[in-house]
Amino acid sequence: MIILGVDPGTIFTGYGIIKYAKNEINLITQGVIKPSLKLSIPYRLEVIYNELNKLIKIYKPDEFAIETAFYGKNVQSAMKIGYARGVSLLAAIHNKVPAIEYSPREIKKSVVGNGAASKKQVQYMIHTLLNISASKMSFDESDALAVAVCHSFKSSMPLSKGKSWKQFIELNPDRIIHS
Amino acid sequence: MIILGVDPGTIFTGYGIIKYAKNEINLITQGVIKPSLKLSIPYRLEVIYNELNKLIKIYKPDEFAIETAFYGKNVQSAMKIGYARGVSLLAAIHNKVPAIEYSPREIKKSVVGNGAASKKQVQYMIHTLLNISASKMSFDESDALAVAVCHSFKSSMPLSKGKSWKQFIELNPDRIIHS
Repeated sequence: MIILGVDPGTIFTGYGIIKYAKNEINLITQGVIKPSLKLSIPYRLEVIYNELNKLIKIYKPDEFAIETAFYGKNVQSAMKIGYARGVSLLAAIHNKVPAIEYSPREIKKSVVGNGAASKKQVQYMIHTLLNISASKMSFDESDALAVAVCHSFKSSMPLSKGKSWKQFIELNPDRIIHS
Repeated sequence: MIILGVDPGTIFTGYGIIKYAKNEINLITQGVIKPSLKLSIPYRLEVIYNELNKLIKIYKPDEFAIETAFYGKNVQSAMKIGYARGVSLLAAIHNKVPAIEYSPREIKKSVVGNGAASKKQVQYMIHTLLNISASKMSFDESDALAVAVCHSFKSSMPLSKGKSWKQFIELNPDRIIHS
């Protein structure tokens, strides 16, 4: 199963594509979509849509995973993230890729084992799991890969709700990629 | 000039299409896009995009006007409105229709003459200006028409910033449609 994880924003939209098969997670590619800041919001949204559309056509993901909530307090920032998420979801739906949403807490709990983990902790787990050097990865990319990894765990494992990543490692030592 | 005004939301998306020519504003059509609540957000966004796309193909608006800010305090609501605005803007851009954003305050000031006007006051002015019976119009529709009307004023009149609708009536009595 190929999963495209996206962390959308009108300035930076991180993406990460992973392949999950036979209890192994492998990185396919990762990157950041950066529409020119000289563009107005509608044209930036077009760049995000077009780039995701292109990635979907190239890598043919089976599923699309995205963060759902926003834990900041600024409503204008929330709305702008909403703009970018809206067009990202549309790129998935227009290509008939099922889109699944996860809350930041769910993602962190699933990847790090702690729903309140920092971006740095998430990045550390992602580079360990996928064998990527941390220096090669921005937070936009590690957050996008974290959504994809979270989805691979959630969609494949028969664990009951509330179980943590820690328990998952204990139950599935073969799914950890060691560098 | 044909203007499409949109008031987007993931539950109701109001739209209003007006024609502005020779100092006269006329209503072309108005309505509300209501994606089934049984659909998940991504599929509701697809309905909004498809319906706006269809309206643009049929009525060929020259310009697209939309509200920009959100004055509530709930970040989750702001984000959902952002989803709907994002895909609405994309429908405009995909059809090469220039998209213009106005703040709620600017719209109210332009239509009613008071930046803090209520939805009812906006609706009253819209039905007077466009000769529509108030009973035939939801707030989603009158808000969408208000953005379109605001844009027709802003894009056509050589008034300096800060002048109100009241002053505009005094200066342009011929632009008011009497029932």
